[in-house]
Amino acid sequence: MSKPFPEDSIGLVSPQTYPFDEPLELACGKSLAQWELVVETYGELNAEKSNAVLICHALSGHHHAAGYHSEDDKKPGWWNHYIGPGKAIDTSRFYVVSLNNLGGCHGSTGPASINPETGKPWGKDFPNLRVRDWVHSQAKLADKLGIEKWAAVVGGSLGAMQCMRWALEYPERVAHCVVIASAMKLTAQNIAFNETARRAIMSDPHFFEGDYLLNESLPSSGLSVARMIGHLTYLSDDGMGKKFGRELRSGSFERGREDPVEFQIESYLRYQGETFSKSFDANTYILMTRALDYFDLAREYDDDPVAAFRHALCKFLVISFTSDWRFSPERSREIVNALMRADKDVVYAEIESSYGHDAFLIPNQVRYQELFAAYMNKIKV
Amino acid sequence: MSKPFPEDSIGLVSPQTYPFDEPLELACGKSLAQWELVVETYGELNAEKSNAVLICHALSGHHHAAGYHSEDDKKPGWWNHYIGPGKAIDTSRFYVVSLNNLGGCHGSTGPASINPETGKPWGKDFPNLRVRDWVHSQAKLADKLGIEKWAAVVGGSLGAMQCMRWALEYPERVAHCVVIASAMKLTAQNIAFNETARRAIMSDPHFFEGDYLLNESLPSSGLSVARMIGHLTYLSDDGMGKKFGRELRSGSFERGREDPVEFQIESYLRYQGETFSKSFDANTYILMTRALDYFDLAREYDDDPVAAFRHALCKFLVISFTSDWRFSPERSREIVNALMRADKDVVYAEIESSYGHDAFLIPNQVRYQELFAAYMNKIKV
Repeated sequence: MSKPFPEDSIGLVSPQTYPFDEPLELACGKSLAQWELVVETYGELNAEKSNAVLICHALSGHHHAAGYHSEDDKKPGWWNHYIGPGKAIDTSRFYVVSLNNLGGCHGSTGPASINPETGKPWGKDFPNLRVRDWVHSQAKLADKLGIEKWAAVVGGSLGAMQCMRWALEYPERVAHCVVIASAMKLTAQNIAFNETARRAIMSDPHFFEGDYLLNESLPSSGLSVARMIGHLTYLSDDGMGKKFGRELRSGSFERGREDPVEFQIESYLRYQGETFSKSFDANTYILMTRALDYFDLAREYDDDPVAAFRHALCKFLVISFTSDWRFSPERSREIVNALMRADKDVVYAEIESSYGHDAFLIPNQVRYQELFAAYMNKIKV
Repeated sequence: MSKPFPEDSIGLVSPQTYPFDEPLELACGKSLAQWELVVETYGELNAEKSNAVLICHALSGHHHAAGYHSEDDKKPGWWNHYIGPGKAIDTSRFYVVSLNNLGGCHGSTGPASINPETGKPWGKDFPNLRVRDWVHSQAKLADKLGIEKWAAVVGGSLGAMQCMRWALEYPERVAHCVVIASAMKLTAQNIAFNETARRAIMSDPHFFEGDYLLNESLPSSGLSVARMIGHLTYLSDDGMGKKFGRELRSGSFERGREDPVEFQIESYLRYQGETFSKSFDANTYILMTRALDYFDLAREYDDDPVAAFRHALCKFLVISFTSDWRFSPERSREIVNALMRADKDVVYAEIESSYGHDAFLIPNQVRYQELFAAYMNKIKV
């Protein structure tokens, strides 16, 4: 491990690109002839290849889940607090595989990649993806890595939807399924938030119906508003109140139209939106929110989640957070109820937290961390 | 009453414009030299002038609260179900005054009006308004109508904030104050939703920093997204689920990028946004959400709502709705607690409803209607 990094960090990591030449058949009916996945791995695959853990990322995530890319790196990967030596996902026991999903914008084949048929960015012609497409592509990756069966598939939010789909699509290839802050399908309200975010992007005149790269343009303001909508729904009212209250940026109530940002929460959200819009691809955002909206675990099982989960062969850990109102504990309890009625082995924990949906990403939540670690440590490898 | 209208309707009504030539001093330090208010009245002012009820409108409301503008009018005013002969606000007893607030876009002086100093639309130069400015302008209107004291001031949401401010600014001029689905100040989350909506408008390139009229332009897509954000937060998750579920517009899961509107909730929200953006002024929307954000009942009373309410001389009815998550029952209970500690006469009702914040506008909610009517009927005129 590189010297300047914390002792419990995995240290320096570097992503690797895996090219795939066999076509991937997609749920939409189209197929991708050639595609690539960007992947990071942490820890060592054991001789029996029985200690592999797959990390599935959420809406704005990517392959860089833990460790640092350089010694100057100011921030580690997005789940660094939960992946590393001695951490919940203990890299001294597990071989952790973390990828950027297809359709992403961090190196895996996506709407900003070059379409080999045209030599130009895919843009709006990139096929629509479903959660199952990601799972199928992840299975091809597992084949390439020689992993027959995952010790665990782990994810939060949209990531957990991939984990549940894994348990149904490849039951014999999953030993444990960790479902954090998720749902079997979105509510109408959730779909409405996503649709409003997409509208913000699509109505930006720099969007060019998705072909902004061909037009040397970027729908930054639309994407920024979209991110603001998302971000604020991932926080809880209480948590925001505690963090920002009604604090004024300037400390007074005088204001001119020249600088209409007065409340701290406004400048915070605006900053989040602007930062995100510089680093994320708008078509990817649309694609990922669509995949979220369309995910419906039990659709092809006659809308019966019990019938769906009967296909699973793994054990489950389900975690929710009390202040998460976009993927509320009620949604997790529905998962748990269906699993129990399907006679599956399930541990459920509802974690007291004021961080809303973002709680699953946030460090230093003792009970979450301990419970997550306790479950993972009991997994036999 | 005109024949084609329902018996319990106030029938045909027509708005009147009241010009004011004395300058209105505003909280921001500026003043409006000349200004107009558009007003509708329903019922008859009695000889003692003791039966006048003021209706204060919310974010997107206006003066047309009840009755019809013509025999062909398909829809009555926005609160028609609660204002009329025999209704909660009974026009056979009360003389009801309903206005479009200053800064509005339905006829009263606002950002789209002509600035007499330039001969051009005010646009971004229209002064910022606070809730107290509306209350002061409404007091001038009361003077003009010869109303010394309101039998009641009544409003929902932002309208109720005006009512509470009335009770503090002109205690001797209010007998009853009806506060529906409101709060003494917004939470950080509420401010964040408003800010995101404003961002959507301001980042529309057709906004021209507020001078879109001068540029013969309209920020319709930004305003449409802003309205979608607002609208969806006025509905409850459950209510939306019941109304739309995850119903598909097309009835199937096949889709192309050509028509990405698939879920019913999406087409509903998009329609709401587009309709609104054709009839509402973007600067007014910004101005009204700002007034909402800045409202803080007790700010100049050392942040002590009990001290604030001690100034009131009227009686209070406070109503909240169980599924309202933007102005939750908790906020109303805070009002009630402060009123009780200030030794004021207050009736509080928490109405079971799945309609979210919009519940205060929606007809046919029996308990709400009955309780509202019972309270109003006991008011002596």
